Amino acid sequence: MERQKLIEIARGDKPAAVLLKNANLVNVLTGEIYQTDIAIRRSRIVGLGEGYEAEEVIDLEGRYVAPGYIDAHVHIESAMVTPREFATVVIPYGITSVVTDPHEIANVLGLEGIAFMLEQAKYGPISMYVMASSCVPATDMETAGANLEADDIAHLRANPWVLGLAEMMNYPGVVAGDRIVLDKLEAFDGTRIDGHCPGLTGKALNAYVAAGVRSDHECTTVEEAREKLRLGMTIFIREATNAHNLRTLLPLVTPENSHRICFCTDDRQPADLIDEGSIDHMVRVAIEMGIDPMRAIQMGTINTAQYFGLSDRGALAPGWRADFFVFSDLKRPVAEQVYRGGYLVAENGKMLPIVEAKRPIQLRHSMNIRWDVVDLTIPASGARARVIGSIPNQLITDHRILELKQENGLAVSDTERDILKMAVIERHRSTGNVGKGFVQGIGLKRGAIAGTVAHDHHNLIVIGVDDASMMHAARAVATMGGGLAAAEGETVLAQLPLPVAGLMSDQPIDKVRQAFDTLLEAARQLGSPLHDPFMAMSFMALEVIPSLKLTDVGLVDVDQFVVVELFVDG
Amino acid sequence: MERQKLIEIARGDKPAAVLLKNANLVNVLTGEIYQTDIAIRRSRIVGLGEGYEAEEVIDLEGRYVAPGYIDAHVHIESAMVTPREFATVVIPYGITSVVTDPHEIANVLGLEGIAFMLEQAKYGPISMYVMASSCVPATDMETAGANLEADDIAHLRANPWVLGLAEMMNYPGVVAGDRIVLDKLEAFDGTRIDGHCPGLTGKALNAYVAAGVRSDHECTTVEEAREKLRLGMTIFIREATNAHNLRTLLPLVTPENSHRICFCTDDRQPADLIDEGSIDHMVRVAIEMGIDPMRAIQMGTINTAQYFGLSDRGALAPGWRADFFVFSDLKRPVAEQVYRGGYLVAENGKMLPIVEAKRPIQLRHSMNIRWDVVDLTIPASGARARVIGSIPNQLITDHRILELKQENGLAVSDTERDILKMAVIERHRSTGNVGKGFVQGIGLKRGAIAGTVAHDHHNLIVIGVDDASMMHAARAVATMGGGLAAAEGETVLAQLPLPVAGLMSDQPIDKVRQAFDTLLEAARQLGSPLHDPFMAMSFMALEVIPSLKLTDVGLVDVDQFVVVELFVDG
Repeated sequence: MERQKLIEIARGDKPAAVLLKNANLVNVLTGEIYQTDIAIRRSRIVGLGEGYEAEEVIDLEGRYVAPGYIDAHVHIESAMVTPREFATVVIPYGITSVVTDPHEIANVLGLEGIAFMLEQAKYGPISMYVMASSCVPATDMETAGANLEADDIAHLRANPWVLGLAEMMNYPGVVAGDRIVLDKLEAFDGTRIDGHCPGLTGKALNAYVAAGVRSDHECTTVEEAREKLRLGMTIFIREATNAHNLRTLLPLVTPENSHRICFCTDDRQPADLIDEGSIDHMVRVAIEMGIDPMRAIQMGTINTAQYFGLSDRGALAPGWRADFFVFSDLKRPVAEQVYRGGYLVAENGKMLPIVEAKRPIQLRHSMNIRWDVVDLTIPASGARARVIGSIPNQLITDHRILELKQENGLAVSDTERDILKMAVIERHRSTGNVGKGFVQGIGLKRGAIAGTVAHDHHNLIVIGVDDASMMHAARAVATMGGGLAAAEGETVLAQLPLPVAGLMSDQPIDKVRQAFDTLLEAARQLGSPLHDPFMAMSFMALEVIPSLKLTDVGLVDVDQFVVVELFVDG
Repeated sequence: MERQKLIEIARGDKPAAVLLKNANLVNVLTGEIYQTDIAIRRSRIVGLGEGYEAEEVIDLEGRYVAPGYIDAHVHIESAMVTPREFATVVIPYGITSVVTDPHEIANVLGLEGIAFMLEQAKYGPISMYVMASSCVPATDMETAGANLEADDIAHLRANPWVLGLAEMMNYPGVVAGDRIVLDKLEAFDGTRIDGHCPGLTGKALNAYVAAGVRSDHECTTVEEAREKLRLGMTIFIREATNAHNLRTLLPLVTPENSHRICFCTDDRQPADLIDEGSIDHMVRVAIEMGIDPMRAIQMGTINTAQYFGLSDRGALAPGWRADFFVFSDLKRPVAEQVYRGGYLVAENGKMLPIVEAKRPIQLRHSMNIRWDVVDLTIPASGARARVIGSIPNQLITDHRILELKQENGLAVSDTERDILKMAVIERHRSTGNVGKGFVQGIGLKRGAIAGTVAHDHHNLIVIGVDDASMMHAARAVATMGGGLAAAEGETVLAQLPLPVAGLMSDQPIDKVRQAFDTLLEAARQLGSPLHDPFMAMSFMALEVIPSLKLTDVGLVDVDQFVVVELFVDG
């Protein structure tokens, strides 16, 4: 059996499969870098040191070998590709394991969505661990595709690929001692419970931590992170497409606390993944900013493994997984070869051809819209109305009270003041719900944009100048089985099909990125000056981030946490 | 329920039970020491910081508060008292959790012995975790009271107080890939597997580690420990009664590797426990030797908790156990108050009176000797014989070939050359086995000493000048149901009953220590110049430590690993 084989090779009685000679081992366990040979058999490191023989000997001539990176928290759906495709993007960067919260697809397809993610990861090119999504839906002021309570998700902990409970975003519920929320924590007692508590401090933070939450990836200041560290939380420093915390938080890191700090990407869009990278990018930036390379690599490897109790990865030692990458410049680690499970899987930034078990995508269609009742007109039942004030590069919005432009008794978009109509069309349960309102700051002068990426319920969201463009953009999205589109009148200018739950493409990431670039170009042509109006739009429906948001149920005053009327004087 | 109560108190809506004001918190998670208040409810820390209220407020006036120590590896039996009594000794030192290998009692009573240790720990004053004993018996060249294979111990992993497999002393078996040994490792895959591999190095060490062993407490040099650390082992630095490794190994500790180093006591006799202490003693010595106090305390607390996956202790944070001690001098931490589970349990070195559930000792008698066949005479069937050469303060022995003194055709003790007769009388299964031989270096001029502490099989061992004294000492031990005795002729000079498996007293440790001191004095009167001839004797029967040992089966040439004849020319 395998253990006996490992022992035979380790003690030198049988040759190893692969021997890396003259490796400069980045030993994240002891903080040392030194030259050694590395003997490998199948998925495991077998021996370190002199005198091993092997069927295949590779002389690394002093190049560095570091353990494969582990992403501590990532929503793969944000890459808009399937887990298998996602893997082919990050593996060449040296990321060999990820811990994912399948929160987006769970909001669309519930347990079936989570099962899909686990299924896709099987026998795939990356080790994908899952945290059980804790907040589906985000609130009861929206219609999501599922409603997962403690009893629905508790069984997931028996899955060896499930490590615990994903980010408990309902931190007010935890602090209030909400029974339904605490049931979820209890269902995952003894495993890892990830947190999400932006800005939480003092006694409320103590309460959140006392409840059992052990990590946080939402810190935006060093002071915030330090308070959380002191209370026992592990800090995941995040560098996402829409949240850049790395440079701000690096001054937190000291030799004394660094082993309780990890790196995560949270949400990264295709362009960022392709152009910058993932955890590898964070390590390079950290080193640039003056963090010792050993410490930076530890934050991307062993620290994360230890937090999650992954005892066979995150470091390179006999019996541990042979997941690692080879690189030449300690000041700027770029993976030249990546090994996973003992096999070379990527070289010079490219995946090598792999033979993998077919895992066909078997998921139900997620577009369930009662088009017969969808009516985007808004009768002008008052003069002054609540308008969502979009703020560039921020998830929070202003709650503005403005006079609306009226035509024929209807409230309509006003491009002069950049007030655009917005609708959220329920797409999961054919309820016929359509939330309607107005948003300021998107900048379209003509046409409309629409999409099924709309955090966290992921209903069909559309923003536009006129109802016809809005309807055509929305219809185009629905016809694709979900996705993103830009339209002007009856012409669809650009579109990106996301048939997997309306969130992910079934195509390679390069194609997704290309299509997305075309969409951005179309939006620019329609007048939007925003870097990414689709991402801005996707957060206009997230009713847990202040101050005013629109769901399929209607406008939500997040500060009051209630659904409110559009017109204030109706 | 409890979690809701914790949250209410943590957020400040209800008073805590106890509030420690103006504590100087030793935060082993961040490596910082700072002033804070500590709110407690029942067994848990609830909140850290300003503004908490409580039913009982204690002003610490700036004194230090550190998490309770955890002993990473201890054989409680070596303290010759029951676990409950052991707890009352170490709790006042600030040790609130121990990880024990019930290896000694398992060799006598098998699973019943392990169950006894777990039973005794229940509702007791200390958190006692158990590692499943891996090497019972040590070899097949002895008769122990049990023979535990993988299938016998595998079920123990389901016990929440069992953390893994205890020190795998049969490292040659692991390195050789012995099926029966590997079965034990496999039975505990995914838990922690402790090691024991003195001096193992190079490829053999790689093989041992590749097999899954993750710690070692047998290092005697910095080089040995560094090699093991680099291969991924956690190093337990040991300071036992019979193995002083602390001062030698402290130079190993660096800021980069210290979090993978823990402290353990392994075996400490009553006198050492009472006079010096336990892990607290190690921390003080480490600080004296120049280790930063924070780092020293971390090696006695959080590092051990992390190795064993104990996620609620080893540090002080909301939701973690309120196990801690209060002290005044950071350069020489001495526990002034000790809290366990939120309650003050010891003060100024003394246990406070505790009301605890009765746990009567219910164990079968362990003395099963066929006295009718015990004959200590040794016919002189040759002139030159193998003699065990005892070396002061060492467990290893010399393998000497000497001429024996003869009287009436019998080989007898020769006090002039300090060659004494020795016998190991099987006491578990009434086999009638009596191993007989000679030992040089114990120094008795008259009489005999005997005992049932005889590693690891713990048969009845006796060393003496004449057969009558030997028989009386041995009989005295058997009559007590096990223990230690010194006799001269028909007079028993001193004795210590150890009725619990012949290893532990049912009396308080002070009485045990007193009785043991009397035994030592008796041995001195009989002529032995050794500091502790009973301990020396107890290792004369351990056939896994070179070079020549005596078990109930006979003399064992440990280097050849075979049973050998007494006479070399018979």
